[in-house]
Amino acid sequence: MYRTDSCGSLRLSDAGKMVTLAGWVQKVRNLGAMAFIDIRDRYGITQLVVDENAAAQLHEVAAHLGREFVVQATGTVRERAAKNNKIPTGDIEIEVSEIKVLSKSETPPFTIEEISDGGDELRMKYRYLDLRRAPLQRNIILRHKMAQKVRQYLDAQGFLEIETPYLIKSTPEGARDFVVPSRMNAGEFYALPQSPQTFKQILMVSGYDRYFQIVRCFRDEDLRADRQPEFTQIDCEMAFVEREDVLNTFEGMARAMFRDVMGIELGEFPRMSYADAMKYYGSDKPDIRFGMRFVEFSPELKGSGFPVFDAAEYVGAICASGAASYTRKQLDELTNFVKRPQIGASGLIYARIEADGSVKSSVDKFFTQEQLQAWAKACEAKAGDLILIIAGTQKIALRALCELRLEMGNQLGLRDPQKFAPMWVVDFPLLEWDEESARFFAMHHPFTSPIKEDFELFYTDPGKVRADAYDFVCNGVEIGGGSIRIHNREVQNRMFEVLGFSKEEAEAQFGFLLGAFKYGAPPHGGIAFGFDRWCAIFGGHDSIRDYIAFPKNNAGRDVMIDSPSPIAVAQLDELQIKLK
Amino acid sequence: MYRTDSCGSLRLSDAGKMVTLAGWVQKVRNLGAMAFIDIRDRYGITQLVVDENAAAQLHEVAAHLGREFVVQATGTVRERAAKNNKIPTGDIEIEVSEIKVLSKSETPPFTIEEISDGGDELRMKYRYLDLRRAPLQRNIILRHKMAQKVRQYLDAQGFLEIETPYLIKSTPEGARDFVVPSRMNAGEFYALPQSPQTFKQILMVSGYDRYFQIVRCFRDEDLRADRQPEFTQIDCEMAFVEREDVLNTFEGMARAMFRDVMGIELGEFPRMSYADAMKYYGSDKPDIRFGMRFVEFSPELKGSGFPVFDAAEYVGAICASGAASYTRKQLDELTNFVKRPQIGASGLIYARIEADGSVKSSVDKFFTQEQLQAWAKACEAKAGDLILIIAGTQKIALRALCELRLEMGNQLGLRDPQKFAPMWVVDFPLLEWDEESARFFAMHHPFTSPIKEDFELFYTDPGKVRADAYDFVCNGVEIGGGSIRIHNREVQNRMFEVLGFSKEEAEAQFGFLLGAFKYGAPPHGGIAFGFDRWCAIFGGHDSIRDYIAFPKNNAGRDVMIDSPSPIAVAQLDELQIKLK
Repeated sequence: MYRTDSCGSLRLSDAGKMVTLAGWVQKVRNLGAMAFIDIRDRYGITQLVVDENAAAQLHEVAAHLGREFVVQATGTVRERAAKNNKIPTGDIEIEVSEIKVLSKSETPPFTIEEISDGGDELRMKYRYLDLRRAPLQRNIILRHKMAQKVRQYLDAQGFLEIETPYLIKSTPEGARDFVVPSRMNAGEFYALPQSPQTFKQILMVSGYDRYFQIVRCFRDEDLRADRQPEFTQIDCEMAFVEREDVLNTFEGMARAMFRDVMGIELGEFPRMSYADAMKYYGSDKPDIRFGMRFVEFSPELKGSGFPVFDAAEYVGAICASGAASYTRKQLDELTNFVKRPQIGASGLIYARIEADGSVKSSVDKFFTQEQLQAWAKACEAKAGDLILIIAGTQKIALRALCELRLEMGNQLGLRDPQKFAPMWVVDFPLLEWDEESARFFAMHHPFTSPIKEDFELFYTDPGKVRADAYDFVCNGVEIGGGSIRIHNREVQNRMFEVLGFSKEEAEAQFGFLLGAFKYGAPPHGGIAFGFDRWCAIFGGHDSIRDYIAFPKNNAGRDVMIDSPSPIAVAQLDELQIKLK
Repeated sequence: MYRTDSCGSLRLSDAGKMVTLAGWVQKVRNLGAMAFIDIRDRYGITQLVVDENAAAQLHEVAAHLGREFVVQATGTVRERAAKNNKIPTGDIEIEVSEIKVLSKSETPPFTIEEISDGGDELRMKYRYLDLRRAPLQRNIILRHKMAQKVRQYLDAQGFLEIETPYLIKSTPEGARDFVVPSRMNAGEFYALPQSPQTFKQILMVSGYDRYFQIVRCFRDEDLRADRQPEFTQIDCEMAFVEREDVLNTFEGMARAMFRDVMGIELGEFPRMSYADAMKYYGSDKPDIRFGMRFVEFSPELKGSGFPVFDAAEYVGAICASGAASYTRKQLDELTNFVKRPQIGASGLIYARIEADGSVKSSVDKFFTQEQLQAWAKACEAKAGDLILIIAGTQKIALRALCELRLEMGNQLGLRDPQKFAPMWVVDFPLLEWDEESARFFAMHHPFTSPIKEDFELFYTDPGKVRADAYDFVCNGVEIGGGSIRIHNREVQNRMFEVLGFSKEEAEAQFGFLLGAFKYGAPPHGGIAFGFDRWCAIFGGHDSIRDYIAFPKNNAGRDVMIDSPSPIAVAQLDELQIKLK
């Protein structure tokens, strides 16, 4: 053993103890007669001292130490003269009697500190050094704890962790697959799974009852800022259950995660229909850490005579509490914000509630004070509040109000990353109509069951059918989603009919699952959580990248290992493929 | 909820209780006035009874049930008249008041029983039905328990589970990689990892100290009977450790697995040098459930005058206790066994110890009774034992004795799959000389450290250097292997020199790891366990296939999902590759 203790464990009560530590040199100060060396490991930092009267050889070693050298030091724990109350070991230091360089280091390309001086790209290239920094170590440790907690909880609930294959079959539906050419079956390809969806349903058909897996998934999509070509899912499925059973089980799991990993005790998670989420937040993943719900203007509130309102399909408002003091400049910025092409609102109307209760709006000339007071009342606005109104098509207005609400939440400090507001969104539409191809698509996937109440509608007006599907949302981010699956062959056939699949097409795409369904499929349903994202939410960050030890950049490259890369012609030949 | 209880949970003490069960129909017996239905889930089997006086509709349903239908039944638990003591629920039955078919089933292509009537291929195609059988369910549940135990143990020891990427970089050394064409980086490829070896070493350089992962690995090799193109590894690494630390840690883990999963309390695991393993068992993975160690014949024992012994580089024997009664036919079969081309011995010599203590051998005329008695003494053979002797080149004779010993172990019932003899094999050779390419190859990998005592030899006679490497072996199967790694740049450079790598070649193959090593690499070492194999050993089987939910066949095909398969030309175009 190279050490008796870690660099984070020694305290004043250890004074007098002979110890051996090993770690990386964080800092060296050679102060003439004495030398101070901070050494670091993942448990903390401890100060070593080479005393005035120490052997010359020790001073010699200390004089030649550099940042990130790996050293092993033996000495006696003693109380520090100048205590450092910023670190847990700050009351002690080690009076070193022996020090050995285990490994030298070149000068690192950026500082290994809480906040580094290295830019993003440099830190990605030297990921192994960035991973030494405390913030990343906290993230990786958080992720570990979360994974263990998930397993502990589900194991205790009788779930079995079952591994499904990574070399599977490519299907045309859905996102683009990564494929793997087969050498033994030349001209054929495996695909990497986008999710183990069909396998987990197969496992239910096989009687495994309660399945889970923390599993890598792959999607060959053009990468947006915060997408990774490989990502990790907590994938779960249960048999002989209805929606309530699934929601209760995984709300229990989520609550245990909040409690045991974050130390946060939460009550029941609110459930909101998709319809309400759209109506009040303009989003199927509302951030309910703060209120500011949409208020749709009734015909009375809209009045008549103001052309913008008269022409609008939808008029709605949010009330930003305490924002009446917004300046003209701030209001112009908000207007520009909603008019950006990606949002596309035609403008922003505001109304301030003055200290005396009177309402002052940007469209005063079209409305009486009485009408404006009615707006304030509808929006439950009080003195000092700011009402922001958008008019337009329903689609654009809802989107604009949604973005505006989130922006106001940011500006007013209502989106504290340390505060958590988890919820369920339920009753999604089953189908989406695609104008271009003039057909329905399954919003979730073709095995999602309609809700019981809508079974008849499925045969008469499928576009109106609600799915027995649910999303787990926290702080405006979708962390998980799932559904009760169809286990009845007639309903499944109707689904294919509605989606416009012929029997042959259904067979080609889902053959083995449909085959399995012939031999007694139990009622079942499940959910999958985006684990990377859940980690980021718990860590209080937007980006998943720093919760993945070795992420890829936006071009799908791992710049540390320089991958992907060309391969030898001989390799291509063996696979019987060639480059175009 | 579709059920109040499982099909395995009800007992006599539940009599009188109203319950709802759901499961698969195992068997239906319509006996005129009454019907008996066995329903099954993963927890057990329960008998349902439709009584004589039950509603006609119930009899109607029962009359139309078939094997593997999924049903939901409500009724009252009552004591059985004819108890079945073979199953835990055998004291009770359910007097059914309601029964509902949740899902019908076609007649399955083979019986879903402890022992099925289906052949291998049929069961692979309908894996989802085979997975319903109790033996496979036990295997999958065993695997789950083992995985949870590994995590629990390592988590408690401060190990962090850290996920490493699946889309990595192809390297020419080692087995053949599976590759993944990149669409975003046309003409370039990712590779699927053969193991996370370099990443786990990187993590040590990054200060994570104690890492583990239960991780899928991929090797595109021609498949032998019991290899899979994707397999699962328990991958571990520790920093600031020496060999003893690693062995103690993982012996602790293995002991906990034996104790908590198998209910077997084991003492310390024996440690054997590679040299001794070869000398006494002719194998680097000896099955030490039984003795029968090799006895090498000294010049005195070989005597002179027997041409076979005189010409042999090596003469050695094993003593099969109680096998003196072997018939001529049995001995001929053993002779044929060692003469098979894959073993290649030139023959087999035997000597029986008769009841009176005299020795009778197949080469009596070349040896005196006194000489034969000396053999018996050297082999510690007693009356009733059979000595089996092989002579030849050291390589062939050791291999033949090894196979012969295992065969005799089988024949004499000494290889009980319920008995476990784990051990460590240590001090492997560092290098293997390859005659064809006239160069050394790393036996483990090029980052394996020589043992300290052999550091000097590394510069003078590298072929003799022992590696600081170790294998975890149980019942003659290698379950795990690892080593202390080189963390010193000079030693690493010497290793590349010995392997005949230029700096450029080393850089091209291991660039990012060598890069990381420039910035302070701690001493480290680790181990990886073949998880599929460990499961099979615990389950008492030779084949890993039935411990993997969805395995591939020997042609690398998943016959259930029919993969690999051709992909669309459009997909190939997007990847900018074409078939040859």
